[in-house]
Amino acid sequence: MSQSDSDKGKQQGGGARAGEGRSAGRPATSGQSDKITARTEDFAAWYQDVIRQGDLAEAAEVVKGAMVIKPHGYAIWEKIQADLDRRFKETGHKNAYFPLLIPESFLRREAEHVEGFSPELAVVTIGGGKTLEEPYVIRPTSETIIGHFFARWIESWRDLPLLINQWANVVRWELRTRLFLRTTEFLWQEGHTAHATAEEARAETLRMLGVYADFAESVMAMPVIQGRKTQAEKFAGAVHSFAIEAMMQNGLALQAGTSHDLGQNFGKAFNVRFQNKDKELDYVWQTSWGVSTRLIGGLIMSHSDDQGLVLPPRLAPIHVVIVPIYRSDEERAAVLEQAQRLATDLRAQRLAGQALSVEVDDREGYKPGFKYFHWEQRGVPLRLELGPRDLAAGQAVCKRRDAAAKQTLPLAGLPERVLAELEAMQRELLDRARQRLREHTVLANSFEELAAILEPASAEQGGGKFVMVHLKDDAACDAKIKELKASVRCLPLVDAHDGPGKCIITGEPVAQRAVVAKAY
Amino acid sequence: MSQSDSDKGKQQGGGARAGEGRSAGRPATSGQSDKITARTEDFAAWYQDVIRQGDLAEAAEVVKGAMVIKPHGYAIWEKIQADLDRRFKETGHKNAYFPLLIPESFLRREAEHVEGFSPELAVVTIGGGKTLEEPYVIRPTSETIIGHFFARWIESWRDLPLLINQWANVVRWELRTRLFLRTTEFLWQEGHTAHATAEEARAETLRMLGVYADFAESVMAMPVIQGRKTQAEKFAGAVHSFAIEAMMQNGLALQAGTSHDLGQNFGKAFNVRFQNKDKELDYVWQTSWGVSTRLIGGLIMSHSDDQGLVLPPRLAPIHVVIVPIYRSDEERAAVLEQAQRLATDLRAQRLAGQALSVEVDDREGYKPGFKYFHWEQRGVPLRLELGPRDLAAGQAVCKRRDAAAKQTLPLAGLPERVLAELEAMQRELLDRARQRLREHTVLANSFEELAAILEPASAEQGGGKFVMVHLKDDAACDAKIKELKASVRCLPLVDAHDGPGKCIITGEPVAQRAVVAKAY
Repeated sequence: MSQSDSDKGKQQGGGARAGEGRSAGRPATSGQSDKITARTEDFAAWYQDVIRQGDLAEAAEVVKGAMVIKPHGYAIWEKIQADLDRRFKETGHKNAYFPLLIPESFLRREAEHVEGFSPELAVVTIGGGKTLEEPYVIRPTSETIIGHFFARWIESWRDLPLLINQWANVVRWELRTRLFLRTTEFLWQEGHTAHATAEEARAETLRMLGVYADFAESVMAMPVIQGRKTQAEKFAGAVHSFAIEAMMQNGLALQAGTSHDLGQNFGKAFNVRFQNKDKELDYVWQTSWGVSTRLIGGLIMSHSDDQGLVLPPRLAPIHVVIVPIYRSDEERAAVLEQAQRLATDLRAQRLAGQALSVEVDDREGYKPGFKYFHWEQRGVPLRLELGPRDLAAGQAVCKRRDAAAKQTLPLAGLPERVLAELEAMQRELLDRARQRLREHTVLANSFEELAAILEPASAEQGGGKFVMVHLKDDAACDAKIKELKASVRCLPLVDAHDGPGKCIITGEPVAQRAVVAKAY
Repeated sequence: MSQSDSDKGKQQGGGARAGEGRSAGRPATSGQSDKITARTEDFAAWYQDVIRQGDLAEAAEVVKGAMVIKPHGYAIWEKIQADLDRRFKETGHKNAYFPLLIPESFLRREAEHVEGFSPELAVVTIGGGKTLEEPYVIRPTSETIIGHFFARWIESWRDLPLLINQWANVVRWELRTRLFLRTTEFLWQEGHTAHATAEEARAETLRMLGVYADFAESVMAMPVIQGRKTQAEKFAGAVHSFAIEAMMQNGLALQAGTSHDLGQNFGKAFNVRFQNKDKELDYVWQTSWGVSTRLIGGLIMSHSDDQGLVLPPRLAPIHVVIVPIYRSDEERAAVLEQAQRLATDLRAQRLAGQALSVEVDDREGYKPGFKYFHWEQRGVPLRLELGPRDLAAGQAVCKRRDAAAKQTLPLAGLPERVLAELEAMQRELLDRARQRLREHTVLANSFEELAAILEPASAEQGGGKFVMVHLKDDAACDAKIKELKASVRCLPLVDAHDGPGKCIITGEPVAQRAVVAKAY
């Protein structure tokens, strides 16, 4: 490797030329450095740095708690959308669009729902220059307005199941916000379905939870625990809520998606009735389920490192960047010609059905080292370096974003090899995340043991754990856990380590362990 | 044809069985009939009927001027989005997402902008239970908030051009609303770009106008006139606005898309400056351009007929429906087997790069005639009827949505023939719309002549015209035209019939004719 042009390029480069080092689209006036804080030093600062250097998003500041999703961040969201949308359609759902504004009175029709969402509402009181007779709230979620229309659309069992999804923005007035994880406005999808029986609604709730879990694992390379929320933690208006919970690199939990069994609560609130096969009128059984731009926060905290963003290939907007290396116009012409030919061949390869996205970084006035740094921070999974000596030797230098070492690979068969490397990276990111989840999941059999494990100083900077404890599903127990600045994440649907035991707070017998952790 | 099963099926059918005629998802409690008003009788009622029977959308009613876009309508929007999004990316634009809420003060920074949009704003005054110190408006368009961020992102000529697009919802408090054409909330895309020179900004403005025009013609089969808006009709804050104007079946004009040359107006309002190649600071030159769900209204009024929705194949969510015809379980099995095989073969055909979408309507309890009616109203471009005698004869009966007669076609080579029929339909819809535009475009050389042509009674029900007149670009002239309940649609960029002439109002010499018409 020491002979290669690529390494020479790096020695020459290693940084930007004065005045040319700024990439288009990055805040010019921010005065922030290119430095990424180490995870062990300050995990929260590291997270912000990765987002800034990865050019993913920035705080809107002039709009309370809102963010701008920049092109590179939005491109990841588009890939998430495309994959999920296909899964929703394959399971029989159809997209539709309902109003952003909801009459304030609608929220009051379901008692738990209004209690849960009232503190978070943005309210429109003026329209077209006039004070409105009834204010509208900006949707924090759409169960109420969709319930209203379901009542108009559903008449008999023949109209069921009604399987709808909506891609939309929602607003929840949050006090403490964090890019992607908790913002006053966010983008999401919300599934809303109506069924003829409780069993069908429950099956749908769990089916979509499974869709989320499979997406998280196979596309985001983010292992999750599927579980039921405690009654204290459930969605305002649901009978039961289910969630997928992921572990971030610091051991904190992230609720990455939820699926709610709404029973007949909204059916009764909005009078959504149907004639069943016995010609009797009954209220429909409903579900709702959603994931949001929060997933991008989970993606970042699952895989990125102290050099910046790391993306699983299946969600990378650019899969491969080719960096040409040259010192003369003649060398430039020869190398670029080969680079373009290689790019064309690579684009014929397909990863999970998608043609590879390949960029040739032919920008002039930037040294190779600067380009390496640029694309590494943006999480491009694989880099190919190509110089005149590589050309002469019929090879290219390959650097996987998640590997320390470079490899020299023959140009012959390179596209197939690159695809195999991307597939391996996708797999290995998941394996590593699974190992982390395993290693940082522990058991506790008393409240004191739990408290010691969750000791505040150890979390946030990497010492967080998922602690499996026997716990009663009771608001008082949830409250007691909150004293540890942690929460009950879920009651796992499978693999809760062992069977029944005694609640570590009340001593009463319970059927299984729950996951307790500090969480975002 | 009289021998075919298909016709027999139709004779047996022709309507729904009692109690089984209602399609899932249609308003059950509306009490509205299935009838579609004839265009010549009441064009506005016809439009509403086509939307209702096509299951495209419905008025939200409980939310002033808003609509619900139902799955079939939303599927058309998704096809519009996919095609435009590809065109935007091919021309170098990247998607991003900016906040829904905009500080009210932002709008006041550009004098014309605030004047234009103030009467239409929805204002959020309460957030999280508290009255806000500064209210937010829900974006009516995003020039202001995006200008704010462009100022943070742009520093030098190297950062330009900056080419951004956003897919989003916007709210404009409209007094008179009409489904798709004018609603208080609508979905759209808004392009926002910044450039180093006036010439580049102008070129971008016209490039995107051209993208819209090509999309309208080649995908929507809707011919348009590209032109410049008068100063009185331009976007609030633009230097020059351009639009594509289409003619509906009643001769009324529909502004289907706009592209604005913003000059340095927003650059100055939001202090978006860059260092040019001579190291001098200058304000950027900006553009913005947008199309919305209004396009679906244009699509409906371009092609649909008294039987309901007609969709150009390139925007049809379902291209082909196969209706099996049978009278026994044995016949049903044989026909369905062939129908499924045919569907598979059809799905291997590609129309403009997209696999054909094929539905086999195997619903039980509905007669063929009911199914024909169902899919005709939803605008499926091509129907295949398949019965046991067709099977025996190795044929199928084919009915194109835009043709009066059925054809009997051999099963051998049918997929290729179906594709050819769809391509022909796409072409012929455009040809017919072009012919209509030609036939209903007339010249007038005096105000009296113009007034006679635009006489109120003749428009709306089919007598509308595009009238080419010489007219001065002056607010007083626009006002005079408004007295005729018409407006200056645009000054065509090409083909304004002839050259210079005298303004029909002021008598002053002007360079070309303008298009005057009644409009939506």
